[in-house]
Amino acid sequence: MAVTPSSDLLAQLRWRYATKQFDPARPVAPATWAALEEALVLTPSSYGLQPYRFVVVTDAALKARLRPVSWNQAQITDCSHLVVFTILKGMGLPHVDRFTDRIAAVRQVPRDSLAGYRSFMVRDLVDGPRAAIIDEWATRQAYIALGNFMTAAAQLGVDTCPLEGIEPGRYDEILGLTTHATVVACAAGHRAAGDKYAALPKVRFAASELIDHR
Amino acid sequence: MAVTPSSDLLAQLRWRYATKQFDPARPVAPATWAALEEALVLTPSSYGLQPYRFVVVTDAALKARLRPVSWNQAQITDCSHLVVFTILKGMGLPHVDRFTDRIAAVRQVPRDSLAGYRSFMVRDLVDGPRAAIIDEWATRQAYIALGNFMTAAAQLGVDTCPLEGIEPGRYDEILGLTTHATVVACAAGHRAAGDKYAALPKVRFAASELIDHR
Repeated sequence: MAVTPSSDLLAQLRWRYATKQFDPARPVAPATWAALEEALVLTPSSYGLQPYRFVVVTDAALKARLRPVSWNQAQITDCSHLVVFTILKGMGLPHVDRFTDRIAAVRQVPRDSLAGYRSFMVRDLVDGPRAAIIDEWATRQAYIALGNFMTAAAQLGVDTCPLEGIEPGRYDEILGLTTHATVVACAAGHRAAGDKYAALPKVRFAASELIDHR
Repeated sequence: MAVTPSSDLLAQLRWRYATKQFDPARPVAPATWAALEEALVLTPSSYGLQPYRFVVVTDAALKARLRPVSWNQAQITDCSHLVVFTILKGMGLPHVDRFTDRIAAVRQVPRDSLAGYRSFMVRDLVDGPRAAIIDEWATRQAYIALGNFMTAAAQLGVDTCPLEGIEPGRYDEILGLTTHATVVACAAGHRAAGDKYAALPKVRFAASELIDHR
């Protein structure tokens, strides 16, 4: 496997910023976008359960309907692709079973050989302590995907802007979601030449405040 | 900025897996680790507020104390670096002000010029709707960092294993945390040659189930 030079990785992460102005005339190239969708699919999740679905919006009319329920942020309509991160609501046994079936199929092992792993998931997430916060557990997994997505995009030279300032319930209505619920969105595209935020120094607390070595 | 070929990015993300066996004799090289710490610092967060601290544990005795409160998982003691993701508890005005001061210092702008941005953060997070879930909001930011970290590590050829199966309250006691609270951990290092999980096909639902194009 080709390893990325750490100087490249850090240059890409420094280049990334929460893009305020996307250039609507510069969509993400199809091959690049396909790679980013695959990166989303490859996101790590708890037990591998993938309790989410990524709604990718490119239709201009749909983006126009989402903008007023997104604090009217221009990134919604100016971006190339809007990714809406949604979670499977109330994940329970049916999803665990569907996932167990999927493991058996992909790895070509008998379903019975996975009984222990299935029980482990059930005891933790369905019958166990995390059942009470299952939607929040799923939301955290979606945020891993968001982190992975923004980093992967920066590596491919694609700009992003995470959008927590949205009305999730209205998103669900507009997108017609029933089994899933919106938790956060992220606009992707290419920055407009005039976005003054691109050139501002990135603000971080000192590393000595953020990292505690033991 | 050097862009990573998408084939490299995808190969790295496919190479990544939740490492079960780390080789305790192969620590992460210091320069590589320094880059990963910088990647953590560069993580995007809501408003840029960075409501977290990353505790990096390398001390063998401390790792040995954490293992029993981590479902006794061997990754805790075998890994090179254990990152404990902690959130600032009850983030409020003092942190918003500290961050506003930091913006003023880094960007060399008058504090007054940031009054609007500060009010915006306060109305949302301190006086507004997210105040009631502020610790969960902070946890989600920490999960962005976790996603960023695992992806960045894979790009540098460093193995990771996210660990939700830990006892956060016991972590807080053992690490002596008072202002911060543990939310998740991630072991980093290099996989042992004998880890049979490394070669298993990765299990994902079909892209058509995970991605919904609109």
